[in-house]
Amino acid sequence: MSILVLNGPNLNLLGTREPGIYGSTTLAEIEAMCRALGAELGHDIAFVQSNHEGALVDALHAARTVHDGVIINAGAYTHTSVALRDAISATGLKAIELHLSNTHARESFRHVSLIAPVCVGVIQGFGPDSYLLALRAMAGILARAST
Amino acid sequence: MSILVLNGPNLNLLGTREPGIYGSTTLAEIEAMCRALGAELGHDIAFVQSNHEGALVDALHAARTVHDGVIINAGAYTHTSVALRDAISATGLKAIELHLSNTHARESFRHVSLIAPVCVGVIQGFGPDSYLLALRAMAGILARAST
Amino acid sequence: MSILVLNGPNLNLLGTREPGIYGSTTLAEIEAMCRALGAELGHDIAFVQSNHEGALVDALHAARTVHDGVIINAGAYTHTSVALRDAISATGLKAIELHLSNTHARESFRHVSLIAPVCVGVIQGFGPDSYLLALRAMAGILARAST
Amino acid sequence: MSILVLNGPNLNLLGTREPGIYGSTTLAEIEAMCRALGAELGHDIAFVQSNHEGALVDALHAARTVHDGVIINAGAYTHTSVALRDAISATGLKAIELHLSNTHARESFRHVSLIAPVCVGVIQGFGPDSYLLALRAMAGILARAST
Amino acid sequence: MSILVLNGPNLNLLGTREPGIYGSTTLAEIEAMCRALGAELGHDIAFVQSNHEGALVDALHAARTVHDGVIINAGAYTHTSVALRDAISATGLKAIELHLSNTHARESFRHVSLIAPVCVGVIQGFGPDSYLLALRAMAGILARAST
Amino acid sequence: MSILVLNGPNLNLLGTREPGIYGSTTLAEIEAMCRALGAELGHDIAFVQSNHEGALVDALHAARTVHDGVIINAGAYTHTSVALRDAISATGLKAIELHLSNTHARESFRHVSLIAPVCVGVIQGFGPDSYLLALRAMAGILARAST
Amino acid sequence: MSILVLNGPNLNLLGTREPGIYGSTTLAEIEAMCRALGAELGHDIAFVQSNHEGALVDALHAARTVHDGVIINAGAYTHTSVALRDAISATGLKAIELHLSNTHARESFRHVSLIAPVCVGVIQGFGPDSYLLALRAMAGILARAST
Amino acid sequence: MSILVLNGPNLNLLGTREPGIYGSTTLAEIEAMCRALGAELGHDIAFVQSNHEGALVDALHAARTVHDGVIINAGAYTHTSVALRDAISATGLKAIELHLSNTHARESFRHVSLIAPVCVGVIQGFGPDSYLLALRAMAGILARAST
Amino acid sequence: MSILVLNGPNLNLLGTREPGIYGSTTLAEIEAMCRALGAELGHDIAFVQSNHEGALVDALHAARTVHDGVIINAGAYTHTSVALRDAISATGLKAIELHLSNTHARESFRHVSLIAPVCVGVIQGFGPDSYLLALRAMAGILARAST
Amino acid sequence: MSILVLNGPNLNLLGTREPGIYGSTTLAEIEAMCRALGAELGHDIAFVQSNHEGALVDALHAARTVHDGVIINAGAYTHTSVALRDAISATGLKAIELHLSNTHARESFRHVSLIAPVCVGVIQGFGPDSYLLALRAMAGILARAST
Amino acid sequence: MSILVLNGPNLNLLGTREPGIYGSTTLAEIEAMCRALGAELGHDIAFVQSNHEGALVDALHAARTVHDGVIINAGAYTHTSVALRDAISATGLKAIELHLSNTHARESFRHVSLIAPVCVGVIQGFGPDSYLLALRAMAGILARAST
Amino acid sequence: MSILVLNGPNLNLLGTREPGIYGSTTLAEIEAMCRALGAELGHDIAFVQSNHEGALVDALHAARTVHDGVIINAGAYTHTSVALRDAISATGLKAIELHLSNTHARESFRHVSLIAPVCVGVIQGFGPDSYLLALRAMAGILARAST
Repeated sequence: MSILVLNGPNLNLLGTREPGIYGSTTLAEIEAMCRALGAELGHDIAFVQSNHEGALVDALHAARTVHDGVIINAGAYTHTSVALRDAISATGLKAIELHLSNTHARESFRHVSLIAPVCVGVIQGFGPDSYLLALRAMAGILARAST
Repeated sequence: MSILVLNGPNLNLLGTREPGIYGSTTLAEIEAMCRALGAELGHDIAFVQSNHEGALVDALHAARTVHDGVIINAGAYTHTSVALRDAISATGLKAIELHLSNTHARESFRHVSLIAPVCVGVIQGFGPDSYLLALRAMAGILARAST
Repeated sequence: MSILVLNGPNLNLLGTREPGIYGSTTLAEIEAMCRALGAELGHDIAFVQSNHEGALVDALHAARTVHDGVIINAGAYTHTSVALRDAISATGLKAIELHLSNTHARESFRHVSLIAPVCVGVIQGFGPDSYLLALRAMAGILARAST
Repeated sequence: MSILVLNGPNLNLLGTREPGIYGSTTLAEIEAMCRALGAELGHDIAFVQSNHEGALVDALHAARTVHDGVIINAGAYTHTSVALRDAISATGLKAIELHLSNTHARESFRHVSLIAPVCVGVIQGFGPDSYLLALRAMAGILARAST
Repeated sequence: MSILVLNGPNLNLLGTREPGIYGSTTLAEIEAMCRALGAELGHDIAFVQSNHEGALVDALHAARTVHDGVIINAGAYTHTSVALRDAISATGLKAIELHLSNTHARESFRHVSLIAPVCVGVIQGFGPDSYLLALRAMAGILARAST
Repeated sequence: MSILVLNGPNLNLLGTREPGIYGSTTLAEIEAMCRALGAELGHDIAFVQSNHEGALVDALHAARTVHDGVIINAGAYTHTSVALRDAISATGLKAIELHLSNTHARESFRHVSLIAPVCVGVIQGFGPDSYLLALRAMAGILARAST
Repeated sequence: MSILVLNGPNLNLLGTREPGIYGSTTLAEIEAMCRALGAELGHDIAFVQSNHEGALVDALHAARTVHDGVIINAGAYTHTSVALRDAISATGLKAIELHLSNTHARESFRHVSLIAPVCVGVIQGFGPDSYLLALRAMAGILARAST
Repeated sequence: MSILVLNGPNLNLLGTREPGIYGSTTLAEIEAMCRALGAELGHDIAFVQSNHEGALVDALHAARTVHDGVIINAGAYTHTSVALRDAISATGLKAIELHLSNTHARESFRHVSLIAPVCVGVIQGFGPDSYLLALRAMAGILARAST
Repeated sequence: MSILVLNGPNLNLLGTREPGIYGSTTLAEIEAMCRALGAELGHDIAFVQSNHEGALVDALHAARTVHDGVIINAGAYTHTSVALRDAISATGLKAIELHLSNTHARESFRHVSLIAPVCVGVIQGFGPDSYLLALRAMAGILARAST
Repeated sequence: MSILVLNGPNLNLLGTREPGIYGSTTLAEIEAMCRALGAELGHDIAFVQSNHEGALVDALHAARTVHDGVIINAGAYTHTSVALRDAISATGLKAIELHLSNTHARESFRHVSLIAPVCVGVIQGFGPDSYLLALRAMAGILARAST
Repeated sequence: MSILVLNGPNLNLLGTREPGIYGSTTLAEIEAMCRALGAELGHDIAFVQSNHEGALVDALHAARTVHDGVIINAGAYTHTSVALRDAISATGLKAIELHLSNTHARESFRHVSLIAPVCVGVIQGFGPDSYLLALRAMAGILARAST
Repeated sequence: MSILVLNGPNLNLLGTREPGIYGSTTLAEIEAMCRALGAELGHDIAFVQSNHEGALVDALHAARTVHDGVIINAGAYTHTSVALRDAISATGLKAIELHLSNTHARESFRHVSLIAPVCVGVIQGFGPDSYLLALRAMAGILARAST
């Protein structure tokens, strides 16, 4: 089966951007880790990043007929985008929200997620491991769904 | 005269997206209905959809010297976009906000519209008919304005 | 079929009351316009106005076995009357909320409608045209319901 | 002694109105049940219903010299009427607030009662039994007061 | 000239209702005091009381062509009635809000007046003298307006 | 059938604790009254009190296979315990919330009940009679459920 | 008897400051009007103005043994000064709050008065007449107190 | 190394309690799954459940010198317990918050976690898999910490 | 006379727990300091600590007939426990709230104390000295009460 | 060493002002008590009172090079003065906030202190003893600081 | 032309007060910088500082007939003084608000300015340069106004 | 050195858009003014405008290795874009927020800036001069940083 890993604004700077908060692993390294675990779990991995809210919505739309699940690190749009929320609902795909940092330990405007209520679950605070845990979680969801 | 019908994020999925809420008519069918009524009312109809907030702002700017009124279903951006609100004010065109569903009967974050205060009026809850009613409302506005 | 047009407090003063906000058309003129369009659409129109919240509730109760749909301009009671909301729910009739002015562009206490969540939809901001648009919207609803 | 049972807006539709929430017993049946229990408890029962806030205030005023206690199902006015609250205070009669449904399990605007703070107590959620329990509660209050 | 003194819900019980808050003077006695001062000031006085919000709205409408100013003790409706507010605006008459008690020293829901913003001024806290002070204030307003 | 009467923190001091608010009847006397009425109604009564939130949760769990309904005076935990709320939901037993005093006439933090939304109904303000009324209400619920 | 008329910040500019809001009468002219009415009513008038919160507190303290009542136009301090509120309570003198403008028709931060709850009453919106009405109100209070 | 898996109120009923929300797996089955994965990962697993907030605090204190990390499903105490939050801070152990359900898709009072800000991260919404994912996450944290 | 010093959750870890906030003195050392000062002041000291809210309530109940005053460091329960508040009211003993740290300089949820309103006073921010100051304060209260 | 005891608005009236809240001891008597305890503790005491916020700020500035610690009863300015808060921060002196009454048991606007977050600690509710306890607390702070 | 530079509470301590936030430049040095730039721009500079809100109001009043523009660093009074706001409106002079630090990056109570809405503009966050930038901004305003 | 001047949505319409609020100078004229002043100050100026939030984020990313400082007029995105805020943090460049109008004197949703807390400072209200003042401010920042 196929899983889309969707990354939002500023994640392209990962590894250079505020390493005290986000760590020094780059997004390319995370992509490699995801592809390796995907291979191990027997799932195809697509990996997309954009700073444009509309491009992320487009990517979700495109995923409808191509992928079986979506893992989304919406970054800053987590807290402001009703459009992404509606896009997740509209695709009907199973989605998992993830964050590198623990948003509950940061500024209060990061405590609210507009996306979480339409996702299956949330994983956050484990740095790059958040991606791998989300892939495992999605593998479990897809396994149960295909039973 | 000429009327722009502007459609925001996720409306391209209409007919397939959550039909329980949004119905099974596609956006292309709505466009056809609008063009038919436009012809009956004697107005040209332009029909645009984008998932990008910036593209919607661009479309409003472009409408300034081309169209006489704007009918806007801003979708999710209704509740989050000050940029669209400012674009409507900046164009100086008469605008009507419309929604397929009755947003007041949904989640509380959909009860607030940032755009409504700079529109002439609002029509919502009538499915595809919302578009036709908005066209008739705009025709009335333009008729009175051209007197 | 038969449609009740129900008008709330102060609407009897229409045409004289703050014409800058509400225009110079009287309620009698609006009634005539509604009857004309009703005839054109093939529906009977009943037209009621009262300044008494209880009388409006009574009118809704009476409409249950007489009318097929209700168009309601609840005026000031839009923002304060749970009783009217409950009466609309209790009648089980399809209802449309309308306003002459765009309440979203006025005082903030007019931005909340207690009635909208139990109506099919809302039309506001088009002056007397709001009534005609609401009649057309109701005709569509009744046509689809009778299919 | 004599007890007034006062019923607010839309309760006249009881039995037909949204039976999923309010049950299928009519107000006339509840009146009969109240009169039967009143007779058993040795108290006269007066039973009044109105959809008019002012009429309910008038009824409370009239009760001052006629009744010894008031049981009030204020319906929608529970949440909006300072006038009823003041009328209860002004009469000086012991009052009990009751509801057929459990308002705490419904919309949030029904969680606030303007009337409860000036009543002896509240009974809600037991359907028609709420009336009988309130009568028994009032009988106890009157018995203790007359000691 | 002619001044309407309009009294809202529960004020008919004045003198008997909670004298600790409202004093022991009856509404009839206040009416007599108003008429006496009106004569002294050279103005006709009309004096109306109702527990019905709709009746108060009706009375304001009727006042438009008969009276030159309105003094209103809206009682509990002060805090809940947008309809009365709109009626005052609609009449275009000069209005003064008054209260027997100082509402700012009572429950917090009495601190907000929906009516005050559309009145010339407010007088409260002086018991029956509030009426006489409001009459004098209105006399001054009318004198200046007729210059 | 069998009914658990569950009492929360500080209720063991009843009769001595602030009699101005809670009266002078002790919890043992209330237990006796409940047992007497239980016998009259043909139901077994179990009567438990604890100051420990966890012990109250344990007692609800234990009630699942033993009792047919639960009457709960959660005292202070009414306003702070999500654990008790979840325990009531988890047991699947019919529950009634009761209070000796009218919490709506006390401090504002006592106006919110976390438990009420998962109960059938609420009875409060009648002193020890609140228990007897709740027993009668529960008897009615069980009678209807066993039909 | 003796009445202190206390004026807060910026009132020294009266007549020149924003005449659209505050009118063109100067504070000296108001003082003269107050003294004239004081003489007519048989009361001494002291008239003080300061832009300093502390000086206004000092003036209230000094008034305790000299004056029988205080009329206070606290200006901007109305909305921010707990110190003035405490000073009014501490003096034990009867106080009346007044304003030239109707604060309820202005910015929302002017709708809250920290002082009003410790005053006998409030008079606002009548321009310089507010002072004369407050003097009459105080005369009534002193007359009743000396009975 | 050794990991404590701490379970809060009502989790002992898992598998029987509201399976629509929490699934049909029992806590004993989850414990077995955790022990199996712990063995695979090379970590000892301790597994504790209590309905008592104080007992959970005690368990965290006891863990300080015995375990290397804590995985906590605090259930209802997630939203109400500052004591558990302080206990986590006081132990200085790495902690992970987990939930079976996605709390962001439930009642609004479940959207706030008092515990999350003092945890490394949060995992929720994956049913029993949430435990296994949290164990893997903790294994990663401990591996990195022991480098 | 006899004074109970009651300590809430996590205080047993004092001296080891976050010394940057709470200092390095242990609770046993504080107990010794309290006993020494108690001897000097001529009062017996009882010293209790529990992590269980219910146990703290039980301890307050037990104190009623044994102790003359209560000094309470409720720790985290300060901000969440209505049960402790009610227990303090129910005992009728004079109580003083204390904290080692200055809660006003910490997270905002620590700024609200549910207990303070039913205590005589509050002492916080002085580390272990807070206990000694509270003992002296209680000695003064008891001395004045026994006069 | 030297300690400034700074007193805010209305405290000069102590002993005469609302003795039910503030007691009958005068500020001069408190000053004498402070000087006596200061002598016993071996510290100089300066004692200042002003009703002027600016004068209190000036006094704090002057204290920088003269005193070693500040005890401040800011009275009403506790709740409104950012200037005093900034002055305490600017002086760099150790400060203790004190109140005669327990502000948490009074009006809600007295529950917030703008000054407490920049003080070492707070003592309130013990009448004149609050001053003596604060002096002892300051003596302890200075002793530890000079070690 | 002539410009008043008005400085509020605690700014006299500049250079010594919390240099981490406010820098090490003294107010005298800033005054010299302002005078130098004033000379360069061809404007007279008056420079005033006071810790007294009333004195700042007095200074604004005095500026009306002497200066052509006001630059105000109101310090702590920015967030609490309606009196200063009203004084700026009353003077009718063009005003610029400035701050040394970026208040938006500090405590939330510093995010609200009562003064900004009546100023032409705001400059903040540039340390002493904020003064020079404000002078240049004022020079531009005065130049345009004198055209 | 090199400075990026970044302009957000609708600023391309400057000069034509609502000149009453934004003035009649076009963005091209402002660019020319900036380039002229940049030359005078010895800094290169890059000037970018986009209506797309993502494009603005991209531009900030691109600026990291090219420019030494960023001046940003984020327009409507000021109030809604966490993505821009994070991009500013991620670039590590010094940033200044500017606005043509004084946002504090407009609608309340424009009073909150998500971007200001991560900027050095803010300049607003001076029309096109805001740009020139911001350039001077940035020149000062860069001069000090390069020392």
